[in-house]
Formats: sequence, structure tokens, C-alpha cells
Amino acid sequence: MSERIVASYLIETRYPPEQAAAAMAGEQSSGTFRTMPGETPELLERFGARVEAIETLEEVEQPSLPHARPPKTGGSRLPQRARVTISWNFENVGASLATLWSTVLGNLFELHHFSGLKLLSLEIPEPFGAAYAGPQFAVEGTRVLTGVRDRPIVGTIIKPSVGLTPDATAELADRMIGAGLDFIKDDELMGDPPHSPFAERFEKVMAVIDRHADRTGRKAMYAANISGDLDAMRRQLDLIERRGGTCAMLVLNSVGLSGVIEIRKHSRVALHGHRAGWGVYDRAPVLGMSYLAYQKFWRLAGVDHLHVNGLQNKFCEPDESVMASARGCLTPMLTSKPCTVMPVFSSAQSAVQAGDTFRQLGSDDLIYCAGGGIIGHPDGVEAGVRSIHEAFQAAKEGVSAHDYAANHPALKAALASFG
Amino acid sequence: MSERIVASYLIETRYPPEQAAAAMAGEQSSGTFRTMPGETPELLERFGARVEAIETLEEVEQPSLPHARPPKTGGSRLPQRARVTISWNFENVGASLATLWSTVLGNLFELHHFSGLKLLSLEIPEPFGAAYAGPQFAVEGTRVLTGVRDRPIVGTIIKPSVGLTPDATAELADRMIGAGLDFIKDDELMGDPPHSPFAERFEKVMAVIDRHADRTGRKAMYAANISGDLDAMRRQLDLIERRGGTCAMLVLNSVGLSGVIEIRKHSRVALHGHRAGWGVYDRAPVLGMSYLAYQKFWRLAGVDHLHVNGLQNKFCEPDESVMASARGCLTPMLTSKPCTVMPVFSSAQSAVQAGDTFRQLGSDDLIYCAGGGIIGHPDGVEAGVRSIHEAFQAAKEGVSAHDYAANHPALKAALASFG
Repeated sequence: MSERIVASYLIETRYPPEQAAAAMAGEQSSGTFRTMPGETPELLERFGARVEAIETLEEVEQPSLPHARPPKTGGSRLPQRARVTISWNFENVGASLATLWSTVLGNLFELHHFSGLKLLSLEIPEPFGAAYAGPQFAVEGTRVLTGVRDRPIVGTIIKPSVGLTPDATAELADRMIGAGLDFIKDDELMGDPPHSPFAERFEKVMAVIDRHADRTGRKAMYAANISGDLDAMRRQLDLIERRGGTCAMLVLNSVGLSGVIEIRKHSRVALHGHRAGWGVYDRAPVLGMSYLAYQKFWRLAGVDHLHVNGLQNKFCEPDESVMASARGCLTPMLTSKPCTVMPVFSSAQSAVQAGDTFRQLGSDDLIYCAGGGIIGHPDGVEAGVRSIHEAFQAAKEGVSAHDYAANHPALKAALASFG
Repeated sequence: MSERIVASYLIETRYPPEQAAAAMAGEQSSGTFRTMPGETPELLERFGARVEAIETLEEVEQPSLPHARPPKTGGSRLPQRARVTISWNFENVGASLATLWSTVLGNLFELHHFSGLKLLSLEIPEPFGAAYAGPQFAVEGTRVLTGVRDRPIVGTIIKPSVGLTPDATAELADRMIGAGLDFIKDDELMGDPPHSPFAERFEKVMAVIDRHADRTGRKAMYAANISGDLDAMRRQLDLIERRGGTCAMLVLNSVGLSGVIEIRKHSRVALHGHRAGWGVYDRAPVLGMSYLAYQKFWRLAGVDHLHVNGLQNKFCEPDESVMASARGCLTPMLTSKPCTVMPVFSSAQSAVQAGDTFRQLGSDDLIYCAGGGIIGHPDGVEAGVRSIHEAFQAAKEGVSAHDYAANHPALKAALASFG
């Protein structure tokens, strides 16, 4: 096989960058700190990771992370940053996402050479496309399941996150779907707790969804959080399918790769990928991995939707990062299996950010979740939903939200209230 | 139920610490940025997370992480650190490790209040002990399986990590077990790749193990890396059990919580927990989580061994951190289920660090993996293994390694070569 795994990293080191990159390649393939008996030149040539490129960047005044050590001689006085590209023989790994994870991340963060190391991008070879299912519904399938064409899917997260009884959850769902929402989801904190058992909550919400579907002809999608142990996840997935649900939510970082892959094998509904805990990977500028690399694992594993935060969110993530993540979701991954998925925008969203979201993404293939931006609309929940539709429609027609608002009162009130 | 989940965090913020702590408690339970209709005082009282304690620490000159925002008024000029303790009603979560993960980590790392946030410790309530299996073999069972009493289990990691054929792997295993090792393991990079298929490699190594067991009466333990998709992991686990193997290795961060829990349900062999990728959680001083919190998830999930790095390792981790992690492994967790596991020391270990490892841990309940420190011994592999046994024996007798070496030539040569 000639295809190689290719990963690029941002590094920060006082070693000469080529030495530091060689240490990365050695640690993550056939090299060790001491030469071992079996480490023949033939073996190293075939299985050793290759440093493909090094681009030297700026020096920094202070090391970003502690405990890095300089070389005994020849190191730079200040830590230097560089962009390093490393490749591996597909044979090293085989088509296994778990082994790929160990290979491109593994012990790298702990090497003493580095006061910073982040995986920036990852190219996965084609054979992975044959080994993994990828998304089952993705963008088109989600549109079919929700009956939403030619505009973003608009939804909300059930809040308060924790503490509502199944009845109270269903009442809230009734109000939100009644106001025109296409999509609702559990918060990632809401699983199968004693005060709101999954089965009871799900049944009550589905009864609401069915009642509205009878009226409108469209079934709202409920991303019910099944994240948990596999037995429970399978049981809950069965219930969702039996009861006519169309989606299950997985908290990727708590369920883990093998759990998500396993659920994808059994699922006949859309899988909604939540990234709670994501900050640990990306909050530090020179530690962890970018979402552009991270999402590829989960797309191959088979989720249909991936959270990306939202523009002007309540969290720390800058808008450029949010949009890069969202564009990544819609960018094909493999020739044989594009694995494009729906980006999910959330966090303090309202009609205010809708226009920029559409313009910057260049697509309405997205799920747009708002909470306060709908419930807090001065003219009520229905006007809240309408204001978001109007904002997207304005952007699609190339009209500014402000101009469009002149004869669209729901949008006008939203801009005044949330702008 | 009156038992609560208790977590403590190191935070860094320009908000008044009590406001910052309240934001954490709100985000991770029933609060939101805007008050929601269902958010009644009764609900908040029952399900709201509680700030139990705040201990103000030092101010720092620079924010540790970017993009934090100060409050509109009343914030401090410099970021301030604090130790914050938060508790949750068990009812919020139920006995689910996945929901617990979302609850104590979740979106916290992304809150705009913080230029640093790390989970330091976690107390898990007793009902989790009934819901999860915990380790099946732990310390005592591992001693029974290996036949090693009254001293540490001494082992090695097969190197080069990648590229050896099954035959070459078995040859190396033969040499190492023949020299007296109790334990061998695959590197985390070695799974089921085309050039060394798991089944073939495992069979060849087991033939070697059996041959030595016939001679010595003790079966060396082989932690074979099964980390992968669940179908493959179950198949490989079956093979291990059928063929008389005693251990399987799981890369915790790539397999994930639900996968590890599922494998534990089916396993009749010891589970060896590898933490490749751990650096992303702990390398930054004020981001992620401490190993003391992290390991509790995996101990309840059911691993028997956990990697902790080693003293004077080749990586960045300071010795105090290594020993705190190892002591954590041997500290009981729940009254009903102590979940103590064997700490695994590795990374540039030799006879040199053995004495301090024993003295600082206060126990010989540990697995000690050395590579170059055995193979690189000037008098050969057998002397390498013997030097480590001698170093531990000296420490146990309260004799310095230097004194003990006077009439133990293997130890003497090791100290001279690796010291």
C-alpha cells in the first residue's frame, strides 16, 4: 500500500526543529531512546515515521508549557515554534481508528523536547473508508427525517438542563415544537437519572412530537441523550427506533470511540455528536488538537451531526475557529466516503448571528440551536422561531437583516432585543 | 439519597472567585445564562450544584489561557487563582460514569470566565460501586496470575514498537522471559496491523510463554493490545481466554469509557490500562484534570493495572506527580468497592530508580517495566533483570543500593552503567 497517514503539528521547542521532529517520528513509530537489537535499517525504512516538512515560525519569550528540557548542547535560548508534517506507512496502523489515535497523539504531549505540541490537521488514507461506516444520514438524511428543505434546521436544547420531570420536559417540548421548531435535544447533563428516567422522558416527548406531526405532517427530531454504558445505550436505541424516534445523541468524549463505532453499527437513526469536554483539547493554543483533526475520527466512526459552538458564543471560542470547524464538517474527507456531517451551532444564538452564520458558511446545511434567543423573544416563542427563519431568509436573499426587518416584525424585535 | 458528588478545581479568573464558582455550578447543573421559565427555586434547591468551598490563592501576571473575559465591572486587574469545591446531588446524574464525566468536566473548560481550570480531585458516591464492576484481578489477582509474591512484578515493553513480525516478536519475548521477566506487553502503537496480525502474534508469543511455564512453573503475563472496535476486541479477548492468556491491554483514551466498561463485562483476564494521550489532560498546569480524578473513572470501569510513568522518566512529568498517581492507584476509592489497582511504572526505568520507587510508594505492589535498563545491561539481559530484583530487595531490607551492590555484581554493573 502506498497511501500514508499524514499529520501536521504546531510545536514549540528549544531543540533544533529537525531534532525535535525526529524525536516525534521515532517515539510514534519504530524508534526508541536507546537503539534496540531488532531495530534494523530495513525495519526503520519501512515502518519509521517520516518527517515530511518543517516550517520554522516565531520564537516566544516564555515556554507555553512547563517541564520541557533543552538539548545538552546546541539548543536555542528561547523556545521556537514550528509547523511539522509527519507521515506514517498505513501498514503501521491498519484501518483502526484506535491505533490511529495512539499513533498521531499517543505520548507526543509528554515528550520532554516540547513546551507545546498540537495536532493541527490529519489526512486519513482511503482504506479507512472501507473499514468504517461513516455517517448514515448526514446532511441529506437529516433533511429527509425532519422534512426541512432549503433552510437551516432550527432547534433548541431543553433547559433547565437538569431537574425537569418527564412531564415538564414534554410540556416544554410541546411549547417549542408548537412554536415551529424542527429539532430539540437533551442537554449533555441529562442522561438517565432517577428523577427523569430515559424511557419515561422519551415516551412523553414522543407523544408530543407525534401529536404535532399529525397536525403539520413533519416530525420534529429529538436528539435523546443515550450516552452511557453499552447495554443501556443499545436498549435506549432500540426504544427510540421502536417508538419512531429519529435521532440519538452521543457525548463523544465520555462514550469514546469504540462505543460510538459500536452504536453506529446498530443504529437506524441519526446520531447527534456532542463534544462536551472539547475545551481540554483546544483551549490551550499549543496543546492538544484542532477540531479539524478531532472531527475526522467521529465522522468516520459514524455520527451525522457535530457541535461547533456558535458565532459570538457565550464561551471563549473565537468566531474564526467556530467557522473553520463548521466548514470542516461540510468538507469531504475521503474519495470513497466524504463523511460530510451537519454542523450544529449553539451557545447564546439568536436571529442576530444567523445572517453571518449563513454568509460565512456559504451554506444552509446546518442545525441552529437557540434557547434564550427564542424563549426570550419579546413577542413570544413563536416569534422567536420566526425571527430566526427570517434572518436566514434575508441572508439567503442577500438582504441585510436590518433592511429585511423593516417589514418583518419578529426579526425587527429580535434584533432590537438581542442585538 | 444524601450522598453527593464532590469535585475540587483549580481555577484562574478575573471574576470575583465566588461569581466564577457560581458560573461553574450553574453551567454544570440547572442554571443558564438567562433565567428559563422552568427554573423554579425548588428545582434549583434540589438540583443546582453547590459551591462548598473557595480558597483564594495567588494572583498571576499573565492569563494562563487566552480568550477569557473579565466581568463588565468589579473584576480584578490580574487573574487570580483559587481552589473551588463544588458538589452535586447524586440524583442529577444517577450511577452513570458517562453522565458523571459530562457533569464534572463538560463545558467548564470553555467558560469565558476562566483563563485556567483544572479538575483536581473527585469523590464519587457509593451507589457507583453497585453499578460498576471495578477491577476483577487488581493487585492480588495479578499476583496469583503471575505467581509473583513479595516483590514487584518486573516486565518490559516489546520494542521496536512497530515493525517486528510475529516471529520476531516471539523471539524477543523468548529472550526476555528466558531472562526471568514476569510480564511483557505490546506497545500502544501495536494493535492488529497487516504486518503483525494480532491472532498470529498472540499465538506465537503464547507458545513461548507456555514453554517457559513448563520449565519454571510460572506463566509470564502478556498484556496483548486489543484496543480497537468492539467486535475485534471481543474476538481477541476470546482468543486470549481460549489460549490461556492472562491479560489484555486497553488504550483508555482511544477505546473510551463505554468500550472499557463493556470489555470488563466479558473479560476473564486482567485488564492493563494504558494512558497514551494522557499529556493532553495534565501537561498544562491549569487546564484539564489531575490523574487523581482521571484514574477513578477507569478503576470503576474495571481495569486492573494503570500506567503512571516512572521516576526520572524520559518524559516531562516530575517525580512527585508520578508518585502521587501511583499512591492514588493503591488508595481505596469506595467503602463497598476499594477498586485499588496495580500502578505500572515505565519510561527509561532501570535498577537505578527501583529503590526510590519502593521507598516512596511504601509498597512492592507494582509493575516495573524496563527496556534499555534490561537489554542494555553490560552483562546481558539476565543480569539486567537480576539487577532490578536486587535493587528492590536492597530497598526492602533498608540497605542502600550502593551498599547492596558490593556483593551483587548485576546491581553494581547496572548502577555504574545507568546511574
